[in-house]
Amino acid sequence: MFITFEGLDGSGKTTQLKWLAAQLADAGYKDVLLTYEPGGSDGAKDIRKLLLDRPPELWDAREELLLYSAARHHHLRTLIQPALDRGAIVLCDRFFDSTAVYQGSAVGEAEAILASIRQLSIGGVVPDLTILLDLDERESMRRVAARGALNRLEQREAAFFARVRAGYLALAQAEPERFLRFDATQSEAALAQEIGQRVLAVLDARLQPR
Amino acid sequence: MFITFEGLDGSGKTTQLKWLAAQLADAGYKDVLLTYEPGGSDGAKDIRKLLLDRPPELWDAREELLLYSAARHHHLRTLIQPALDRGAIVLCDRFFDSTAVYQGSAVGEAEAILASIRQLSIGGVVPDLTILLDLDERESMRRVAARGALNRLEQREAAFFARVRAGYLALAQAEPERFLRFDATQSEAALAQEIGQRVLAVLDARLQPR
Repeated sequence: MFITFEGLDGSGKTTQLKWLAAQLADAGYKDVLLTYEPGGSDGAKDIRKLLLDRPPELWDAREELLLYSAARHHHLRTLIQPALDRGAIVLCDRFFDSTAVYQGSAVGEAEAILASIRQLSIGGVVPDLTILLDLDERESMRRVAARGALNRLEQREAAFFARVRAGYLALAQAEPERFLRFDATQSEAALAQEIGQRVLAVLDARLQPR
Repeated sequence: MFITFEGLDGSGKTTQLKWLAAQLADAGYKDVLLTYEPGGSDGAKDIRKLLLDRPPELWDAREELLLYSAARHHHLRTLIQPALDRGAIVLCDRFFDSTAVYQGSAVGEAEAILASIRQLSIGGVVPDLTILLDLDERESMRRVAARGALNRLEQREAAFFARVRAGYLALAQAEPERFLRFDATQSEAALAQEIGQRVLAVLDARLQPR
């Protein structure tokens, strides 16, 4: 069972991923892997440094797309797929949908190119569930600014993030079976409770607790 | 005018590229850029380190393909294309043909995937001339071993390099207008003379010396 978390920066993905892991443990699911992109595996972490620690103008959209795809292939091949193969539940902070909305719909890469890069980097792998933490771009930027320093990806304008949000909502509408959408302006605890209930309902229908 | 050098390691690409640059200068061509892959530009050099300085087992063929393509896009966008746009002659040690034979035909990537990655990384750019320094795999490996330490790319077996050589010869046969093939077992000076004559004949037919 492969569960991904998506949403704008500041939407609470990392926090909610940990809450869900705790709830899965309480419910008797013992083998749960927590991971994240870009990064997660050793090679992918090296690529992450090239993406996030350099000046924002170094890479253009296509170079970002290729670097994210190389990192994702390594992460999937060496960490995620082996965990799925042994029957683990994998919780991953961002995955291909981030590429689709950040490098794809948000910057205008053609559908055919995205489809090719998807085939090359993840083949037929599709998450079983995607938790979309929906937040408007102003609130996202407010929360990120409140954290302090902005990294390379966060130094963009509101119009860009508005396109990213719209991209996420379009994906969720296109794949309603996979996406569970949540209002990320709720309190952390209320959001965690809602995510836990909905995810456990799906898991209990599909898997036996171990 | 975009001229690339291709061939197995040890075939003399780097040396012959410098000889040709000297002959072009003698013939009155003033603006000649010498560059190489993987690398050439600052971002591409960072990716080169990930490719060449890590353990050979870190990346699989698809990750190599994606990393080379990201580096190539940066190199083309920031260094090669601006030089071509101002009318320079660009001499480049390896380019997309290396990807086609090393990550492509040699390791079995599908034609459709190579075509997509080509479109994504270089668009419609095709070298005007490609100097193929042809050498059999045994001689290539003997020359590389004589240099001392083998890098990550050079630690492969003879069967792999035999496929690479066959891949190059197939490309040269498919595009006889672009490829000039040379016997790389000749002496350095004889090879340089032959390359200079053939390239200058093409240049003089297409360009006016400046």
